[in-house]
Amino acid sequence: MIAEIINIGTELLLGYTIDTNSAYISQRLSSIGIDVFFRTTVGDNKERLLSVLGIAGGRSDIIITNGGLGPTVDDITFKTISEFTHKRLKFYKEVLEDIDTHFKNRAIKMPLCNKRQAYVPEGSLIMKNDAGTAPGIILETNKKLLIALPGPSFEMGPMVDNLVIPYLKKRFALKNIIKSKTIKITGLPESKVNEKIKDLLELKPPVTVGIYAHPQQVDLRITVKARDEKFADREILKIERTIRKRLKGFIFGADSDTLEEVAGNLLIKNRKTISVAESCTGGLLSNRITNIPGSSEYFKMGIVAYSNEAKINRLSVPKALIKRHGAVSKEVAVSMAKNVRAEVNTDIGVGITGIAGPKGATKTKPVGLVYIALSAPDKTIYRKFNFTGDRLTIRQRSANAALDLIRKFLMKL
Amino acid sequence: MIAEIINIGTELLLGYTIDTNSAYISQRLSSIGIDVFFRTTVGDNKERLLSVLGIAGGRSDIIITNGGLGPTVDDITFKTISEFTHKRLKFYKEVLEDIDTHFKNRAIKMPLCNKRQAYVPEGSLIMKNDAGTAPGIILETNKKLLIALPGPSFEMGPMVDNLVIPYLKKRFALKNIIKSKTIKITGLPESKVNEKIKDLLELKPPVTVGIYAHPQQVDLRITVKARDEKFADREILKIERTIRKRLKGFIFGADSDTLEEVAGNLLIKNRKTISVAESCTGGLLSNRITNIPGSSEYFKMGIVAYSNEAKINRLSVPKALIKRHGAVSKEVAVSMAKNVRAEVNTDIGVGITGIAGPKGATKTKPVGLVYIALSAPDKTIYRKFNFTGDRLTIRQRSANAALDLIRKFLMKL
Repeated sequence: MIAEIINIGTELLLGYTIDTNSAYISQRLSSIGIDVFFRTTVGDNKERLLSVLGIAGGRSDIIITNGGLGPTVDDITFKTISEFTHKRLKFYKEVLEDIDTHFKNRAIKMPLCNKRQAYVPEGSLIMKNDAGTAPGIILETNKKLLIALPGPSFEMGPMVDNLVIPYLKKRFALKNIIKSKTIKITGLPESKVNEKIKDLLELKPPVTVGIYAHPQQVDLRITVKARDEKFADREILKIERTIRKRLKGFIFGADSDTLEEVAGNLLIKNRKTISVAESCTGGLLSNRITNIPGSSEYFKMGIVAYSNEAKINRLSVPKALIKRHGAVSKEVAVSMAKNVRAEVNTDIGVGITGIAGPKGATKTKPVGLVYIALSAPDKTIYRKFNFTGDRLTIRQRSANAALDLIRKFLMKL
Repeated sequence: MIAEIINIGTELLLGYTIDTNSAYISQRLSSIGIDVFFRTTVGDNKERLLSVLGIAGGRSDIIITNGGLGPTVDDITFKTISEFTHKRLKFYKEVLEDIDTHFKNRAIKMPLCNKRQAYVPEGSLIMKNDAGTAPGIILETNKKLLIALPGPSFEMGPMVDNLVIPYLKKRFALKNIIKSKTIKITGLPESKVNEKIKDLLELKPPVTVGIYAHPQQVDLRITVKARDEKFADREILKIERTIRKRLKGFIFGADSDTLEEVAGNLLIKNRKTISVAESCTGGLLSNRITNIPGSSEYFKMGIVAYSNEAKINRLSVPKALIKRHGAVSKEVAVSMAKNVRAEVNTDIGVGITGIAGPKGATKTKPVGLVYIALSAPDKTIYRKFNFTGDRLTIRQRSANAALDLIRKFLMKL
């Protein structure tokens, strides 16, 4: 079963909107064993959309359009599908009632133009939009299946999950499932990860492993195509064990885990509180820690001591220490970590000082040099990094390394 | 002149990587008057890429491929272009030398597999890659122009700007230029902006205005298609003046301006220093301010007073004040702003307190309720907001509103 996605929208084509919907749709289809081989983006233009539909019809079994279902004259998807399939647009009273209700719930009078959205290609299965006005449709025609979805992600997402996926599973009696699990690694470059699991990357279906590098982490995705869930789970577990044996402490989580979430859970589990003193990261570490709901349980305070005065006056970093070693030094990082811990009275204190650039480098201290220290009652540790990348990347990498230091400390790695 | 983009990569197709390159390429092409009508994404599969190249060749003048130029067997772009154009792959010594130099500069021995990248379709104009190993190519054939670009954005971007755009301008003697300017608005919802400039949105080419809503801002893009720069500039200025007259204080900048940059420049211009005390934003405001290089000139310190203890002990917010009004109140926001200003000894102090959710709401204080205060020697102001969205959106909207409050204060708006 081959599916194809057609994105409709001039703003997508011109690059003013970044397409994230296709990724979502592709992943959901993949989970039920439907492959997406092509994806086309086309503007709000009837002739060009017609030609794209024609091409898709010639090579795919399922055509999924996304966008162009709004109430304005620019929105041409239903009209074009109607021409493509020779099914006339028909007025559906119940669709108009749904749209009207949507406005009534928000105490707004329905604009006249929204009536347009109630004209739907005849014979369609209409999918109610719980988050907006545009209905979606599923239309069976000429052995091809046409599905039209609204453009906004928060309308498209639930419609795919609640209506499209169940429909496709039933319609094609899909027995094959594709399960995957992503193992997340940080603190080791892609080339090193690659070296350690090279043989796994060469595995062939039904079990495969893919490697995906990001600026701050490397993902290994295990994918299994199977007839039953148990087989898939067993195969995934087998590979996961091998990966965990070879990469041990560098693995911080799986699937949707984030490093801040993992570190936060470890703090809760160990009943530890934390405070941080940041210089070059400028609040990013505090921000990532507090992105997690419930972080107030362990995060007590963050100090962004950007200037030397702030380090001296607010964090009691000795002036002489800065003079002797420089503000970017392991000594200052350690002092920041120790002092923020003592001042805020938490179990753990973290200090970060570094040069995020583009300016600030000296002969001996290049852009990207970052010291991160962690202070606890029984020990203090520090790490030196030479990060590459621009200002924002260096800041992100620094915050990431600090979170990983917290994780490793709490896991006694 | 019609161009078409072909993205090559299974990870793009499956949705593990979000495509941002196409947006970049489309915008750069548009600036020299070349329209992109279609964009196709296809996996690392020779047959399917061949068929997509065939379709593109039938409807577009310029075909731009992106990705699939790496050193592994998965990278099939040159091989497929070679088949498509009947130009054999030829070994280019100078390309191999460039690749070798790339590794030497990083003190790494060139892996053998990279030699593959030096085999290029014969007759190509080779584009040197300053940020990676994969060369790009421009290949003239059958009245079609084929351009192949590497996938990583930091390799693709400079190649487009420095080599592809100049080549296309010269090759097609492009006289028409498209100039655009984006006016950036914050603090006013899309519907209100729409109301105020409705007539401008209906303008027809060569001068058009588009409206683009983001969670924290609304962009108005003025676009002019013209034969000469002067005409375009004059028309843009005319429209810009009208927009500025109607939306005055809500406009914070243009084009690539960010609110943190605008606020930072105002602080420099007015020779003011700033410190911030954050609760619900958890360091995001400090982080956005210090994202700007040179922000150490005005940003002295940030305190993330996440817990009540931190507010009381570190920011001297009176315990009784929190008890009487609650931690999320205008009184506490004002106290945070005043006290951080006094303690750090800056010209301006900012305080933020609110409920980012998902928990923490009470009967009278819903998720999204945020108070932001600004304290200066001669006056203190505060604002109350009821933001919608999830935790991260509320945090972002709060930081944005704080930056806008700083901007408006310094502009005496």
